[in-house]
Amino acid sequence: MTYCMKFWRCFTNWIGGMGILVFMLALMPLTGGSSVHILRAESTGPTVEKMTPKLSVTAKHLYLIYMGITGLEMIFLLFGMAPFDAIVTSLATAGTGGFSVWSDSMAHYSSYCQIVITVFMYLFGINFSLYYLILTGKPLQALKNEELRVFVCMVLFAIGAISVDLYLSGAFSQNIGDILRHSAFQVATVSSTTGFATADFNTWPAFSKTLMVGLMFIGSCAGSTAGGMKMSRIILAVKAVKHDIHALVHPRAVKSVRLNGKAVSEEIVNRTVRFLICYLMIFVVSTVIVSLDGNDLETGFTAVAATLNNIGPGLSKVGPTGNYAGMTILSKVVLILDMLIGRLEIFPMLLLFSPSVWRKGR
Amino acid sequence: MTYCMKFWRCFTNWIGGMGILVFMLALMPLTGGSSVHILRAESTGPTVEKMTPKLSVTAKHLYLIYMGITGLEMIFLLFGMAPFDAIVTSLATAGTGGFSVWSDSMAHYSSYCQIVITVFMYLFGINFSLYYLILTGKPLQALKNEELRVFVCMVLFAIGAISVDLYLSGAFSQNIGDILRHSAFQVATVSSTTGFATADFNTWPAFSKTLMVGLMFIGSCAGSTAGGMKMSRIILAVKAVKHDIHALVHPRAVKSVRLNGKAVSEEIVNRTVRFLICYLMIFVVSTVIVSLDGNDLETGFTAVAATLNNIGPGLSKVGPTGNYAGMTILSKVVLILDMLIGRLEIFPMLLLFSPSVWRKGR
Repeated sequence: MTYCMKFWRCFTNWIGGMGILVFMLALMPLTGGSSVHILRAESTGPTVEKMTPKLSVTAKHLYLIYMGITGLEMIFLLFGMAPFDAIVTSLATAGTGGFSVWSDSMAHYSSYCQIVITVFMYLFGINFSLYYLILTGKPLQALKNEELRVFVCMVLFAIGAISVDLYLSGAFSQNIGDILRHSAFQVATVSSTTGFATADFNTWPAFSKTLMVGLMFIGSCAGSTAGGMKMSRIILAVKAVKHDIHALVHPRAVKSVRLNGKAVSEEIVNRTVRFLICYLMIFVVSTVIVSLDGNDLETGFTAVAATLNNIGPGLSKVGPTGNYAGMTILSKVVLILDMLIGRLEIFPMLLLFSPSVWRKGR
Repeated sequence: MTYCMKFWRCFTNWIGGMGILVFMLALMPLTGGSSVHILRAESTGPTVEKMTPKLSVTAKHLYLIYMGITGLEMIFLLFGMAPFDAIVTSLATAGTGGFSVWSDSMAHYSSYCQIVITVFMYLFGINFSLYYLILTGKPLQALKNEELRVFVCMVLFAIGAISVDLYLSGAFSQNIGDILRHSAFQVATVSSTTGFATADFNTWPAFSKTLMVGLMFIGSCAGSTAGGMKMSRIILAVKAVKHDIHALVHPRAVKSVRLNGKAVSEEIVNRTVRFLICYLMIFVVSTVIVSLDGNDLETGFTAVAATLNNIGPGLSKVGPTGNYAGMTILSKVVLILDMLIGRLEIFPMLLLFSPSVWRKGR
């Protein structure tokens, strides 16, 4: 592949990441009343309105933050790789796309580069409005963000648990430094839904693999370039269930679900939970269709998980060292739709297939 | 094992099935206002109140129906097996428990017996209040029940799809009679969450296996002795998602989710969707813990699916010819809890672990 093609591939990653982000955070509220509700259900936390009064200004700020962090990664990477590689790798990290110019992905680069990329994958998985808060001199408010805190806890737990599991299984010759670096990288690539790889997690023990599949679904924070269900939706769903249990014991207590110390309206909570169920339904239907391929259940199951959540590699035949070439046309069509649905956050895609949108005279 | 022990095992199946049914349909509304809401969210369709004005009378009717169908199965089975076998098999079918006096389960009996058991497994998966409607001279009203219709369609689709898949894969020497009997039996055992077996579906092709896992989660109708998520909850969730998509196109349209032609309140719909999410969360957490065993993902995944949904056999190492003996103590504890949670419909179990229930001075 020529340099030009390689650059273009990674540039599409970058454009896609920013495009969706701006679409999500800036353009959608303009289209009508109900879209705002979806947007709110999707990007909880310090929302768009609180950033700047004008949406176009907000969009500009987000662009600048996005460019800034990408540039920062480039600078750090220049100390460890060729300029061209630094540029394309940063672009692919920022858009959480995961394209690489080398077939062995990020395993091609030094440990230093891998650590830098790990850090930036996490940074691109955080709600971008938090960076705005930091830039406007409110770093404490950003650090108090509940989604961020839960995300950090989840990531630390995952890295710790997988490291212990890998150490006990004798992976990476039980070298603690290597184990930590590889588990942190793989957790980052899966939870930020980037798709880079430095190790073949398909060969990891069952507990680590199961955790990785779980992380695929959770994804990162709302308002980031990452895919997946998003942390804040999971938090809201867990709180909604807790709330229901509380209501069983105290039927007369009026207590609403709270996020970042503020009450979240019933409607947003319910829409969020329905979104998750809808997400899982698409996952189940896709898995059943893909199983017609006759591949083992792990391949079919994780192929859908990896595409719907926009990761890239799954497990078994579609693991980090495998690919989707062995799938039938039908499966490929389903997986393509899953990738689009996952990237466009379901509802715009489902709308496209809703007959009432196409009916005349609306 | 002595006859006495064998009888006792199957009798516990029967008592358990009836116990839960009556507990669900008759006793829970007595305990307080909020329990009625759960009951309503769980057993949609013609609910308890509509059967008879008094709950104790309703309970008696349900007991009689339960005994009646069990007796009917015994009579049919007497034509194909020994009297003792007929009695214990009917008891195990009625309670959707799945205990058998033979280690090769129902494969021990003739095709005639297998067909009878298949039919009765489906019958015990249907909402018992529909039988009451039929007995009180309203069979048309029973047949119009939406949950029943969707259940029948799902079962027919599953049997058809699995039969074609088995035929193409060359299973059962492509004998269509055998294929239909075995697929109907295995679909019945999984969707009614009974757990009998006449064939090792672990050796079936991927598509059939994936469908079977899907059926495990769906289960049968609400108000039956079966486990799983229950058909009516799935129907309500699908309708809620459809409703959300419709609301995106017509933001001002007021349209509620309808079941059996009647509008279902927002609260019930939302509670149902939250219930499903809660169910899936328990599934995910259990799967992660069970994966510590180091078994393949298919074993861990389906072990939790088979216990939480009260089936019995899963796939891979815990398939119809395998068992759970190879699991660690930790996994066994988790799976035991899953079985209890699945049988008691989650909320009573979760309440037990809620600190506010145990707090003094309530």
